[in-house]
Amino acid sequence: MDQTDIQQVSQQDTAQPDVIEALAQVFGPAGILTSPEDCARYASDQSGLHGTPPLAVIRPASVHDVSEAMAICSRYRIGVVPQVGRTGLSGGACSPQGTVVLSTERMTGIIELDRDAMTLTAWAGTPLETVQEAAREAGLDYPVDIGARGSATIGGTIATNAGGIRVLQHGMTRANVLGLEAVLADGAVVSRLSKTVKDNSGFDLKHMFIGSEGTLGIVTRAVLQLRRHVPQSALALFALPDHAAALKCLTAARQRFGSRITAFEGMWPDYWDFVCHKTSLATSRLDGRYGFYLLIEVEAEGPESEAELEAFFADLFEADLAQDGVLAKSISEMRALWQVREAVGEVDDDFGHHINFDIGVSPSALGGFCDAADILLADMPEALGVIKVGHVGDGNVHLLVAHDGSHAAEESIEAAIYGLLRDWDGAVTAEHGIGRIKARWMDHSRSPQELALMRGLKAQMDPQGILNPGALFDQI
Amino acid sequence: MDQTDIQQVSQQDTAQPDVIEALAQVFGPAGILTSPEDCARYASDQSGLHGTPPLAVIRPASVHDVSEAMAICSRYRIGVVPQVGRTGLSGGACSPQGTVVLSTERMTGIIELDRDAMTLTAWAGTPLETVQEAAREAGLDYPVDIGARGSATIGGTIATNAGGIRVLQHGMTRANVLGLEAVLADGAVVSRLSKTVKDNSGFDLKHMFIGSEGTLGIVTRAVLQLRRHVPQSALALFALPDHAAALKCLTAARQRFGSRITAFEGMWPDYWDFVCHKTSLATSRLDGRYGFYLLIEVEAEGPESEAELEAFFADLFEADLAQDGVLAKSISEMRALWQVREAVGEVDDDFGHHINFDIGVSPSALGGFCDAADILLADMPEALGVIKVGHVGDGNVHLLVAHDGSHAAEESIEAAIYGLLRDWDGAVTAEHGIGRIKARWMDHSRSPQELALMRGLKAQMDPQGILNPGALFDQI
Repeated sequence: MDQTDIQQVSQQDTAQPDVIEALAQVFGPAGILTSPEDCARYASDQSGLHGTPPLAVIRPASVHDVSEAMAICSRYRIGVVPQVGRTGLSGGACSPQGTVVLSTERMTGIIELDRDAMTLTAWAGTPLETVQEAAREAGLDYPVDIGARGSATIGGTIATNAGGIRVLQHGMTRANVLGLEAVLADGAVVSRLSKTVKDNSGFDLKHMFIGSEGTLGIVTRAVLQLRRHVPQSALALFALPDHAAALKCLTAARQRFGSRITAFEGMWPDYWDFVCHKTSLATSRLDGRYGFYLLIEVEAEGPESEAELEAFFADLFEADLAQDGVLAKSISEMRALWQVREAVGEVDDDFGHHINFDIGVSPSALGGFCDAADILLADMPEALGVIKVGHVGDGNVHLLVAHDGSHAAEESIEAAIYGLLRDWDGAVTAEHGIGRIKARWMDHSRSPQELALMRGLKAQMDPQGILNPGALFDQI
Repeated sequence: MDQTDIQQVSQQDTAQPDVIEALAQVFGPAGILTSPEDCARYASDQSGLHGTPPLAVIRPASVHDVSEAMAICSRYRIGVVPQVGRTGLSGGACSPQGTVVLSTERMTGIIELDRDAMTLTAWAGTPLETVQEAAREAGLDYPVDIGARGSATIGGTIATNAGGIRVLQHGMTRANVLGLEAVLADGAVVSRLSKTVKDNSGFDLKHMFIGSEGTLGIVTRAVLQLRRHVPQSALALFALPDHAAALKCLTAARQRFGSRITAFEGMWPDYWDFVCHKTSLATSRLDGRYGFYLLIEVEAEGPESEAELEAFFADLFEADLAQDGVLAKSISEMRALWQVREAVGEVDDDFGHHINFDIGVSPSALGGFCDAADILLADMPEALGVIKVGHVGDGNVHLLVAHDGSHAAEESIEAAIYGLLRDWDGAVTAEHGIGRIKARWMDHSRSPQELALMRGLKAQMDPQGILNPGALFDQI
């Protein structure tokens, strides 16, 4: 995604000096930043989209502060962009002109860890990695894991329903949140920080806030469900004839390992070759060229798990599903294999101008969709190259398409891929979120009736449209 | 719960003949029932609450039919009670005066089973058991399981977010639904029958309908996530000193068996003694009297799983956590052990007038809550007896309190238990749902801000209040 300036969304210019003054009176110097340098730092996330520096950055230190900030912004009808780690890839944290940023960065830290209930309660501004480490110290695990774990926060991962490599086993963020507290557009605090696992007493309101990208409320605290920590795992790389074989491997792996599969990641040959070409990570791993590469990781109950993976490979080999394979025999070998998969981060920079699609389809349709996309793109002179890597077990492919950097090429490729996706009943974003970049493509995943219901819910909960204006809903 | 007549909710009496005529014109004799006998059959569920026979029973045969029915009822402002299996325990399917029942009983059957994606798409009226059997035939499993599986349907289990004994491993119904189609109050069809696992393209609307008990829309079809079928399991009954020991066993079991634990069910001595007294199921199982009884079931990867459970018991015994135990050595022994736990259904009838509480708290708080409830009830002459049985791993206890059948006793016991629950941050219903019976207690689990948000969402999606009037929201 090339850098683009964000469009103007909020236009309450006359109210601006007043609202800043009202906020400054409440929050004082530590709670509000207004210098051009400070504001510029909070304008954008990692999507490549350029936000306009906000009028001010509000840095509340408590739920009460957030509530007060929202009440003031609501009174002045000023748009509020909720923000913390700014690691998003869809522009959901980029500020449009005439808005303020509300950063929960001062609301950080772990409030409680309950070993019996296996829960951890934390402030929204707590980095994901801090939560993972606290869980680990208690012999437990918080299974949501993404590359940006050091900067991404609990609030941000909840607002975007973050995915990552362990979705297959424990689901996305949504599946790992037990309780939630959020502040609504008018400053009302809706709090349910309960550790109750089973609760059918009325609507499960937390799902309104999870994945709604700050458009319905600002997450302030959360109760997270921890899992047992399995210290060891076994990892193998398999070379297969094609994606269809990978799907058969998935079924076989599920039969054999059940919920012990922690990762099932796929690399198409275009990706593998590109990584071989650009880095030294992959070349030495396998001889020959194959139709598909699979990284499979399973929880290891003991040393016999490596043997289990070996036996699994032998069965696949016999069934003509796997053609070659490597079993990691040490921690460093495991790391090396994972680096091939994670090289997508580095490759990203080497690939020139490109669009990074984050497509979700049914796991059984992933191969078909990718084949169709290849055929489509082969006929498009503006598509200069394609590499594909993804979460095979989840039906999620990151499809990178290179182009010449022109707006026309970008537009044409996006229209082609999202147009194709419509026929496959898929998601224009599986895990990165809609943000501001993909808002105009949402109708390729969602029906007019779904969009109307979403807009109705948004209008009900945020009638002035001040919560993250321009995110999800293109130009409310 | 004693039988009580339902209050009048809908009062559009003048419109009644017109709406029935309008519906009859569209649906014809097969699609609408109006005889007093037919209407009486559809008035109530299994809660003990007596509904008023509906004005008519609409039996749509398609999504289009449901849409048309809602459009007509919306035009005439007539309340609609969605219904299929009528197995609910909270009166959610009981019809208030002046309403029509909409039964999806003719919209039944399995539409597709996708082995690769491990999904099953079914009509709302399909019995749960039919889905379980179809999954089983494909070597898979639909893990939602409740006693009423033969009559309860997919639509009903989704509308109520049904729980059951396998929640610990696979979550409640909410965690097992991938895609959903629902008809809104005005007849709009919101359809997302996608098998896409990861989808962050906008609000996840299905969570609005799951567990909202028909107050926001009528579920017509669903895509369910299947799981691998594990044909064998190992089962043991442990006798423990108290609930605190059960909690320690849970932690130890999680460390040892991880997600292979399929059930972790607890019986307090009051329950155990009652079952011994009333039936012959429990007496022969264990000698002596203990402070707590635990049924633990784990997926068996092979015959060694029984040995695993035996070794687990030995460790618990050594740590003074378990005092006695029985390991099921055959299918019939497993069945016999399960019967002790499931005898709550029979005991129910033998217990005389009583309230069956369905309390949810944090798993770590369950023992404390039950102790506090015992102390509270011991001081209340109107509480004639208490028995407690439940899902220890989920923090869900079914607490049965006997009384003399008077309204005053019932009222006083409910006020005491729900009052206590408020201090424990729990749920007035963990799995049975609010329905009509618990609507007035919802504020004991939910804050005024949560209730206001729920009412706002209801007003947005059903401004006339015609969807299941009186359910969840006491007298909208």
